[in-house]
Amino acid sequence: MTILEKFYQGDIRALSKVISYIEDQENGYRDLLGKLYERSGRSVRIGITGPPGAGKSTLVNALIHEFLNQKKRVGVIAVDPTSPFTGGALLGDRVRMHDFPTTGEVYFRSMATRGATGGLAADTDNITVVLDAFGYDVSLIETVGVGQVELDVIDACDSVVVAVVPESGDAVQTMKAGLMEIADIFVVNKADRPSSERLVSDLKQTLATKKKQPGHWPIPVIPTVATERKNTDQLFARINAHLEFIKANGQFDEHRRLQIKKKILNILKNRFQREFLDRLAGEADLDALADSIHRGEANPFAVGNDLFDRFSR
Amino acid sequence: MTILEKFYQGDIRALSKVISYIEDQENGYRDLLGKLYERSGRSVRIGITGPPGAGKSTLVNALIHEFLNQKKRVGVIAVDPTSPFTGGALLGDRVRMHDFPTTGEVYFRSMATRGATGGLAADTDNITVVLDAFGYDVSLIETVGVGQVELDVIDACDSVVVAVVPESGDAVQTMKAGLMEIADIFVVNKADRPSSERLVSDLKQTLATKKKQPGHWPIPVIPTVATERKNTDQLFARINAHLEFIKANGQFDEHRRLQIKKKILNILKNRFQREFLDRLAGEADLDALADSIHRGEANPFAVGNDLFDRFSR
Repeated sequence: MTILEKFYQGDIRALSKVISYIEDQENGYRDLLGKLYERSGRSVRIGITGPPGAGKSTLVNALIHEFLNQKKRVGVIAVDPTSPFTGGALLGDRVRMHDFPTTGEVYFRSMATRGATGGLAADTDNITVVLDAFGYDVSLIETVGVGQVELDVIDACDSVVVAVVPESGDAVQTMKAGLMEIADIFVVNKADRPSSERLVSDLKQTLATKKKQPGHWPIPVIPTVATERKNTDQLFARINAHLEFIKANGQFDEHRRLQIKKKILNILKNRFQREFLDRLAGEADLDALADSIHRGEANPFAVGNDLFDRFSR
Repeated sequence: MTILEKFYQGDIRALSKVISYIEDQENGYRDLLGKLYERSGRSVRIGITGPPGAGKSTLVNALIHEFLNQKKRVGVIAVDPTSPFTGGALLGDRVRMHDFPTTGEVYFRSMATRGATGGLAADTDNITVVLDAFGYDVSLIETVGVGQVELDVIDACDSVVVAVVPESGDAVQTMKAGLMEIADIFVVNKADRPSSERLVSDLKQTLATKKKQPGHWPIPVIPTVATERKNTDQLFARINAHLEFIKANGQFDEHRRLQIKKKILNILKNRFQREFLDRLAGEADLDALADSIHRGEANPFAVGNDLFDRFSR
């Protein structure tokens, strides 16, 4: 039986192999993605982001339980700043897996941002396609930080939860960090601490001053204690409410169409990088060209234009 | 008289216009760069980086005075995190210009990182070409932060000064911030504060444990008080010593050749983005394609491949 046949039969190890195959961009991975894409389209994507220490992993775990209670299957992608060389990310997966059934209802995958060469958002997007094709109802995507890479990852989600704790600063700092723009739902986690009430009202007040458009989703601020699963059912309910809201008003489809356009552009950029730039960089004549430019016998703009014209039509 | 003729005659306003023309990527800017490139090749590039508050601008000012004393002309590029919309960067230029002769021996240019769409390192590189062609002996490039963009900017410099102060943390934090890898020279500025001595010895010790290669430049740690120009002559001397060192052992040319290769690849990427992706994104049929993919009638990988094949040969 081929790996793909096993994949179609729900074999988890085949799923892991397919994801690795795509991450490593092995021969024909785009055709494979194309096939899987045609089997995808049912699952929703939920992003969870926020500063380190906000308890995102615990929130994700709590949400997984909520989804499992509703007989939903959940794929989790943790975009992890850990170096791919330390193995920290993978170890994290194994530890977290212990909390859940091993029968395939939940699947964890870590992706390391360090060492990622620009295509991380595209990779994450591709993996949600694979999870969708495999039969997961939900992709939960967890990221730390608000660098451009993380924002691109989160931008592809249908619904975005931003988790903060009093330690991560007040509403103004949250706004400055760019978290205000991306949140569909705010969570103030570790809400058993006295200072959290102030942050909740602070965030609510700041959100209230934001200019509202007609038919605008009112961004809720939900206090939770994820370690005790306190109020995480409420978070779960709001996520579902938000998804229903954007499905009803057309935002869901509009956002998906936008993501598809991005995806097409990413595929083109990736092919240009791999089939043209990498090939060129690997060819000896780039060295010779650089030498002749360095000796003052040519200029890089003329050389660049010439190479580009040979490539394009 | 054309702007270019004025530029060749040393007209500062023509210089500013040429730089803006290139930054805005106006028609034929690459041919213009090619022409200017052929007149360039004499000037050196010195990068100054470090966390906010380390006194980089004051150090840059002190270095400018040292260069002017040696009858060298200096172009300064400040890569500034200020938003291009607040005008803060430009105001900064004007304020700093007051310290120096207005006869063209010193030229300031700010570039805002916020809002920059990925090509900032390439832009900075291009502007050093313009400054070089105009007749500046030195490009001083000042950046804040150690994001990938800033690292790319600094990577193009022949000699890199990293400025720190006790407030910016100890040697371990400096290492974690990625500053250890890029420094050719360390400056501990505001060295009149008592805690600075410890940072100097801390950095020296950490640098001593780094694996040395034969013929390796020993990275100095120089205490300065830039506001009083205390020891900045020493910094100036070490920069010149470093440049001589790498010119003598071939590293200078090797690094320049590498930068030329990067430049060629950047030119290709830029043309691909502008002539293919932007055109495609502007064309209505990308919307139609996204719609048909969204309806499940096509898949983005097949569409992407098809578009790419139509473009490339």
